[in-house]
Amino acid sequence: MSTLRVGVIGCGAIGRDHIRRLHDVTKGVTLTAVSDISVKNGEKTANQYHVSFYRDGKELIRANDVDAVVIASIDETHAEFVLEAIKCGKYVLCEKPLAPTIDECRQIVDAEIKSGKQYVQVGFTRRYDNSYRKLKEELTSGRCGEPLLLHCRHRNAFLADYYVTPMLITNCCIHEIDISRWLLEEEYVGCQVVLGRKTQYTEDKLHDPIIVMLKTESGVSIDAEIFGNAKYGYDIRCEAVCELGEVSLTSMSDILVCTEKERRRPIHHTWEDRFIEAYDVEFQEWVDAIAVGGKFNGPSSWDGYMATRTSNACVKALESGRYIEIEKLECPAFYSKIN
Amino acid sequence: MSTLRVGVIGCGAIGRDHIRRLHDVTKGVTLTAVSDISVKNGEKTANQYHVSFYRDGKELIRANDVDAVVIASIDETHAEFVLEAIKCGKYVLCEKPLAPTIDECRQIVDAEIKSGKQYVQVGFTRRYDNSYRKLKEELTSGRCGEPLLLHCRHRNAFLADYYVTPMLITNCCIHEIDISRWLLEEEYVGCQVVLGRKTQYTEDKLHDPIIVMLKTESGVSIDAEIFGNAKYGYDIRCEAVCELGEVSLTSMSDILVCTEKERRRPIHHTWEDRFIEAYDVEFQEWVDAIAVGGKFNGPSSWDGYMATRTSNACVKALESGRYIEIEKLECPAFYSKIN
Amino acid sequence: MSTLRVGVIGCGAIGRDHIRRLHDVTKGVTLTAVSDISVKNGEKTANQYHVSFYRDGKELIRANDVDAVVIASIDETHAEFVLEAIKCGKYVLCEKPLAPTIDECRQIVDAEIKSGKQYVQVGFTRRYDNSYRKLKEELTSGRCGEPLLLHCRHRNAFLADYYVTPMLITNCCIHEIDISRWLLEEEYVGCQVVLGRKTQYTEDKLHDPIIVMLKTESGVSIDAEIFGNAKYGYDIRCEAVCELGEVSLTSMSDILVCTEKERRRPIHHTWEDRFIEAYDVEFQEWVDAIAVGGKFNGPSSWDGYMATRTSNACVKALESGRYIEIEKLECPAFYSKIN
Amino acid sequence: MSTLRVGVIGCGAIGRDHIRRLHDVTKGVTLTAVSDISVKNGEKTANQYHVSFYRDGKELIRANDVDAVVIASIDETHAEFVLEAIKCGKYVLCEKPLAPTIDECRQIVDAEIKSGKQYVQVGFTRRYDNSYRKLKEELTSGRCGEPLLLHCRHRNAFLADYYVTPMLITNCCIHEIDISRWLLEEEYVGCQVVLGRKTQYTEDKLHDPIIVMLKTESGVSIDAEIFGNAKYGYDIRCEAVCELGEVSLTSMSDILVCTEKERRRPIHHTWEDRFIEAYDVEFQEWVDAIAVGGKFNGPSSWDGYMATRTSNACVKALESGRYIEIEKLECPAFYSKIN
Repeated sequence: MSTLRVGVIGCGAIGRDHIRRLHDVTKGVTLTAVSDISVKNGEKTANQYHVSFYRDGKELIRANDVDAVVIASIDETHAEFVLEAIKCGKYVLCEKPLAPTIDECRQIVDAEIKSGKQYVQVGFTRRYDNSYRKLKEELTSGRCGEPLLLHCRHRNAFLADYYVTPMLITNCCIHEIDISRWLLEEEYVGCQVVLGRKTQYTEDKLHDPIIVMLKTESGVSIDAEIFGNAKYGYDIRCEAVCELGEVSLTSMSDILVCTEKERRRPIHHTWEDRFIEAYDVEFQEWVDAIAVGGKFNGPSSWDGYMATRTSNACVKALESGRYIEIEKLECPAFYSKIN
Repeated sequence: MSTLRVGVIGCGAIGRDHIRRLHDVTKGVTLTAVSDISVKNGEKTANQYHVSFYRDGKELIRANDVDAVVIASIDETHAEFVLEAIKCGKYVLCEKPLAPTIDECRQIVDAEIKSGKQYVQVGFTRRYDNSYRKLKEELTSGRCGEPLLLHCRHRNAFLADYYVTPMLITNCCIHEIDISRWLLEEEYVGCQVVLGRKTQYTEDKLHDPIIVMLKTESGVSIDAEIFGNAKYGYDIRCEAVCELGEVSLTSMSDILVCTEKERRRPIHHTWEDRFIEAYDVEFQEWVDAIAVGGKFNGPSSWDGYMATRTSNACVKALESGRYIEIEKLECPAFYSKIN
Repeated sequence: MSTLRVGVIGCGAIGRDHIRRLHDVTKGVTLTAVSDISVKNGEKTANQYHVSFYRDGKELIRANDVDAVVIASIDETHAEFVLEAIKCGKYVLCEKPLAPTIDECRQIVDAEIKSGKQYVQVGFTRRYDNSYRKLKEELTSGRCGEPLLLHCRHRNAFLADYYVTPMLITNCCIHEIDISRWLLEEEYVGCQVVLGRKTQYTEDKLHDPIIVMLKTESGVSIDAEIFGNAKYGYDIRCEAVCELGEVSLTSMSDILVCTEKERRRPIHHTWEDRFIEAYDVEFQEWVDAIAVGGKFNGPSSWDGYMATRTSNACVKALESGRYIEIEKLECPAFYSKIN
Repeated sequence: MSTLRVGVIGCGAIGRDHIRRLHDVTKGVTLTAVSDISVKNGEKTANQYHVSFYRDGKELIRANDVDAVVIASIDETHAEFVLEAIKCGKYVLCEKPLAPTIDECRQIVDAEIKSGKQYVQVGFTRRYDNSYRKLKEELTSGRCGEPLLLHCRHRNAFLADYYVTPMLITNCCIHEIDISRWLLEEEYVGCQVVLGRKTQYTEDKLHDPIIVMLKTESGVSIDAEIFGNAKYGYDIRCEAVCELGEVSLTSMSDILVCTEKERRRPIHHTWEDRFIEAYDVEFQEWVDAIAVGGKFNGPSSWDGYMATRTSNACVKALESGRYIEIEKLECPAFYSKIN
């Protein structure tokens, strides 16, 4: 069996984890090249794994021993690299977001349609998480009737110092934006942002927590609490209120400790603790899909475009303090409506 | 020990349960009289318990063998009876709401202040529920830091046919309005109502579920899901998101059954299943407080007034689809700010 | 309604709690007298509640203003007082055990049969606990098929210094002995005791924890872990393994706290935290049963006798390290087989 | 990177799953050969994966394109194949048990010691399960003090028709035997078997459920409920009672469904649902250990020997109805005491 030769652009924390994954975990793949804006950092990683180093991400994309590309560089560079991959006819797995601006996303969608083939998958990892999959399965089964409300919680123990309020939407809530759309299989028609009382444990530039409210075509109302400095742990919840019952993610932990007058279950510290296994599934499914000709069932460019579009509308809602309508957009026949 | 002689106005479902409670459960009390608009119904109950029957609630209030009154008649009659009790200088425990209109509530508050003594307690039963008390204790301890958000769920399995949308606020959410104010010890400054997707299991006149959003003086944001026809059971939840952690009510059940590939915990069917014991506590504490001269720590007329005022604002928010500001009102020195 | 006049023998911790209960909580009862071996302690309690004091428990039993008696004195005095109550034709609620020796228990049973009326109820409080009642209801419903195994845990945070190993059976496990027989509605045919590794947090004379194993007529095997110095809290569990599923008590707590990377539910500290409400129910049902002529459905003398008999066999099993057979005994027609 | 070439002996259910795993999941490995006593079955599998087929397992072991062997044939053949692998100097991962008889296990241990190198790993998969690992981590941390008791539950929804009572020990409880020894890092000194009431859902030859009791050197008492036809699901539990608290596996499920007056969490149906991911970890760690020269930290021949030895003693205890002592055996310096 010939393996897929993959190059990774971006050797930061998440990039290096993907490099490790491709090298040690994902079956049917050979890591062949890495790229990073820091030559020192990139070369160090390249040497560690005995693969080629490219200063320029585009060069890596064009390289003969690279069949497919993983993009883990900073958000601003995503569009450029994805467009180059489409141009070269190479498969690309791009970390979320597809691109920070709507225009760039649209450019990618247009380029991909023009190329006649789906090359792009966006890294919305939660779709590969077992619990979200079971939740969707239960919703789809119809046993609980139609969904009416979705309550989401996205709590990080802490965020980096450079965070400002809109980043709670563009960097955190974008996961809820994608996963809720995927769970409900519906587009958004409007959004609003409500502020919580501000925790004293952030600087002034970050109003934390907030509640992002979304409305779908059928009228489902979604409230997503985004709390970046929740301190107590990394805690992701989702609760779908349906006509006949409620389906929700459980709070996972492997052990239960009874001690000092309390029953205690560990809570995850970071997103890696919670979703690292979903990454393994995401990468394996991506590689397996390419092996049979690229029939992805993962998030497409269109999904990435819709996420960025919604995220932008939410930022507008945050800034205006008002309800913002989201205009309906016809999904091109090229894409499944919601992957 | 001489016991407190109590009369009950209203022999409907809840009234009869209070009559039973006063007769069989509450210590230090003797049931002496009942009243009901239906002579037949009232007399039947009077005979069952061997007590006097009064056609007119006011007559019962004035009766010599009645020291204190419980009001469980329809909402529209509350003000009239409470005012009469104040006039007669008799203690009164009035089922929620104190009165449906702001004006009536204000009249009661004014009459009570003028009388120079607190005679009135309002039946916000949840304050006597053990789990809400523990939740408040934990919040007050400060171990989790300041509260920032409150997520509430109020789900009934079903509601009576005559329910229209505003009643989700005035009859259901009024509990969340009172208990959240009591938990946070703060007044509300504004409110908004968001519609969920409407369940197909209600008539057109009832848009169910809705989300009532409240904002407090310090900026805490409260979202209270009110779902009157949730079908699967009676489910009350409350989750306080604080600076250092989260405190929430647990989902109670006495047993756990593992069967047919599932772990199952029973859910309450009705509010009686969930809060009946809180009523026992409420009545006992009321009687005990009267025995030592009426030093109530239960919800006062002022609390009842504030609840109706907020509830009215929420109905306006529902009807307008907009955020409604709630004007600040100075609490008279006569009352504790929030009981 | 004339109330039942009750005297309490024993003004220790549990006795004083019963006195408070009869005075403040139980409806339809008037506390009229108390007795204690310590005159000072007894008189203090009597003065506090404005009731008569009797040096001699028997005198209290015979007193004209005492209709019924609660026995909360030390175990060794139970038989004497219960026999006196039967002689005087007065109802008696005796704290567990009915008596420490089989002979005394038998004497009581014989005297009661001879008297022609059931006067005695034994204080096996767990039968009044809501969760055990729901567990029995589920077992009786047959939804899970026949019970095959019972796993019990009886954990105290700590025990008094004077405890020696057999007391783990006679003072702690006696609850599991009674409640398991009541749940299964079967008699025991044998028992065995297995030692756990001894905790370092007890003195040599107390081997803690132990596992008491019982076998019933139909072959159900019961293992009851008795751990007197479990340190982390008071934790009572019961898990019935049936042919089609498992039914168990849940671990109760009113709130859930997420903090410091853990989800925490409080655990009870002492038996009072866990079972104090069951005492309220026990006393109320006892008084209510007397009010309608003494048709008790609580634990009878026969149940008390069987418990002491089984407990004695378990002590023999502990001492011998062997399986001890328990001889079958016909239940006199006077008693229900298992109440 | 050159990959490890692996052959699999046994193309039954579990064998085929391992074949799929080696082909699709495990990184760094190439499936090169399979063997089965059924030529038809074996050739079909070989064709499906385009690998060589060997009628004789020993031939497969000797084959040039086979570096390491996975044994998934019937228990009776294990010893023969393991001994051949040692003889050929090839690594071998043998499904549990190492061998059904103590003599065969001893022979393997002796041969391996004589060979001078550890070639053998036994397939005790639970050691690779995340929750058991966290449980051990917590025990090892000492935060809960010394372990005193271990309560285990091993419940299958159903067993094959050919099961007789001793197989509850040799096929089911052997997992508890290995994992408890691994958790406690201690050897067993005795055992006993207690019968539960027999479920009516098995034939006479299978007395189900039973409780297997083990005692360790330090005095820890282990009770393992083995219930092969529990009907309601596959449910594995482990609860370590320690001096300062309790540590237990949690009951895992990905979602929670509230419906029809119940909160429901799915229970696993089969062992695959529960432990399939542990197999993936087991295989990957095995392959990775071979890649760095065979420094296994998985269960050794010695562990397999000790498990079979204990399992045999338990069968004796079952048959005799008595406590059976297990003689102490010195661990050869060649092996770690407990891996």
